[in-house]
Amino acid sequence: MAARKEMDPIGFVFLGTVTGIGGGTFRDLVLGAPVFWTQETAYLWTCIGASLVTFWAARLLASRLRALLWLDAVGLAMFAVGGTQKAALLGAPAVVCVLMGVMTATVGGLLRDIMAGSKPLLFHREIYATAAIAGAATYLGLRHAGLDEIVAALAGFAAAFGVRACAIAFGLSMPNYKQS
Amino acid sequence: MAARKEMDPIGFVFLGTVTGIGGGTFRDLVLGAPVFWTQETAYLWTCIGASLVTFWAARLLASRLRALLWLDAVGLAMFAVGGTQKAALLGAPAVVCVLMGVMTATVGGLLRDIMAGSKPLLFHREIYATAAIAGAATYLGLRHAGLDEIVAALAGFAAAFGVRACAIAFGLSMPNYKQS
Amino acid sequence: MAARKEMDPIGFVFLGTVTGIGGGTFRDLVLGAPVFWTQETAYLWTCIGASLVTFWAARLLASRLRALLWLDAVGLAMFAVGGTQKAALLGAPAVVCVLMGVMTATVGGLLRDIMAGSKPLLFHREIYATAAIAGAATYLGLRHAGLDEIVAALAGFAAAFGVRACAIAFGLSMPNYKQS
Repeated sequence: MAARKEMDPIGFVFLGTVTGIGGGTFRDLVLGAPVFWTQETAYLWTCIGASLVTFWAARLLASRLRALLWLDAVGLAMFAVGGTQKAALLGAPAVVCVLMGVMTATVGGLLRDIMAGSKPLLFHREIYATAAIAGAATYLGLRHAGLDEIVAALAGFAAAFGVRACAIAFGLSMPNYKQS
Repeated sequence: MAARKEMDPIGFVFLGTVTGIGGGTFRDLVLGAPVFWTQETAYLWTCIGASLVTFWAARLLASRLRALLWLDAVGLAMFAVGGTQKAALLGAPAVVCVLMGVMTATVGGLLRDIMAGSKPLLFHREIYATAAIAGAATYLGLRHAGLDEIVAALAGFAAAFGVRACAIAFGLSMPNYKQS
Repeated sequence: MAARKEMDPIGFVFLGTVTGIGGGTFRDLVLGAPVFWTQETAYLWTCIGASLVTFWAARLLASRLRALLWLDAVGLAMFAVGGTQKAALLGAPAVVCVLMGVMTATVGGLLRDIMAGSKPLLFHREIYATAAIAGAATYLGLRHAGLDEIVAALAGFAAAFGVRACAIAFGLSMPNYKQS
């Protein structure tokens, strides 16, 4: 059973790439912008490379999927702020910017969970959305308050990562990768 | 277990908003039109407000999710007709209009089920599609027969809602929110 | 239980159509091209017709879903090559072409599994991706090597179908349609 769950590198890289670009793809489609990775393939190669590194590095860890959980929290925070930034840059209203931040951060992970056949838990998803909203709102609020772009982005990152890290630490949102 | 299923307002509002705008977002992307809620944020605020009202009102009911089931039927019928109308307005052929109506009506609820971790049942989905097709076809048929826009839209709404309401009444399509 | 799994023609045709056009829809959206079936409704009618034929033909077979598995393998191979071809035609870089081939081939089946409430298995999806990558890479490689379009496309089809057929033959990727 556990052996069947072991993926080959191709499947793993595919899932990793979808996770990495899924949210941003959705954001660009909704905003009517050209999809970022069709313009600049460096994003694709980065995802492919990062997935391969994770695949081999994770062999050393107790569980490959556990390692992904933390990578995921970093990605969530980064994407929440990045998605909000891009929407703001394109002149979208504040509420649309926050929603784009949340979508950029959550859609990739959601697609991965669905494709990997693990059931996205209610609570799991909820904390995701809450963490992303915290990050997006912190960033936008500080920008409106006149703070520097970099400072606002870092504070937004910290807010999103903080909420998610608490959830992981308290075991609230461990995806049920054991079931199938 | 049941307690874990209880959502906080943020998670609930997020799910409610995705359900409300998911189908129309998909329709606009496919038709190449600007996504409606990026142009007019009133749609977003309506979804957020309606989700909050539902959240608090549902506390009084036996089950929050049961209340959603009926809101869902109204939304299904409204979106089936609205999606068909918009596609017709943009000059799409009849078969594309019907498919857009079905998609507008079903994609939001499908996304919610997936995000909430409830398994969308085969039969459940099927009745959804059948109800939406009934509404879209009724609307288009009456329009082609020369009837007034409002009359055709109301008849389409009644057709979709009627099929779905029967399914709920006969217990055919209760989503298995109890499981997880 | 089994009886509840039996679909009516409308639900079946809807699922069949989504499976047929889902991947190509996604590809066109990402590439910024008009969605193919909104331009040419013959694609929609073909899917609807093929679904109806499958529905009635499958009555004669032991299991309707088993028959879909093989149709699926043909579709996977065709869509992997077709998606790669269209992206190449639009001038996308090689890595984007391969990803578009994989997406065209897998997104439709993924949507069907989700809508039908069958859990997409990890291993199942993985073989899908691997088969599609094999097909897309074979096609692109032979094109770059200067081979004829038709020869390259047929070789790509054979590569994708071969990988998937092996997986089916060895029982690696039978979707768990029995569970729910």
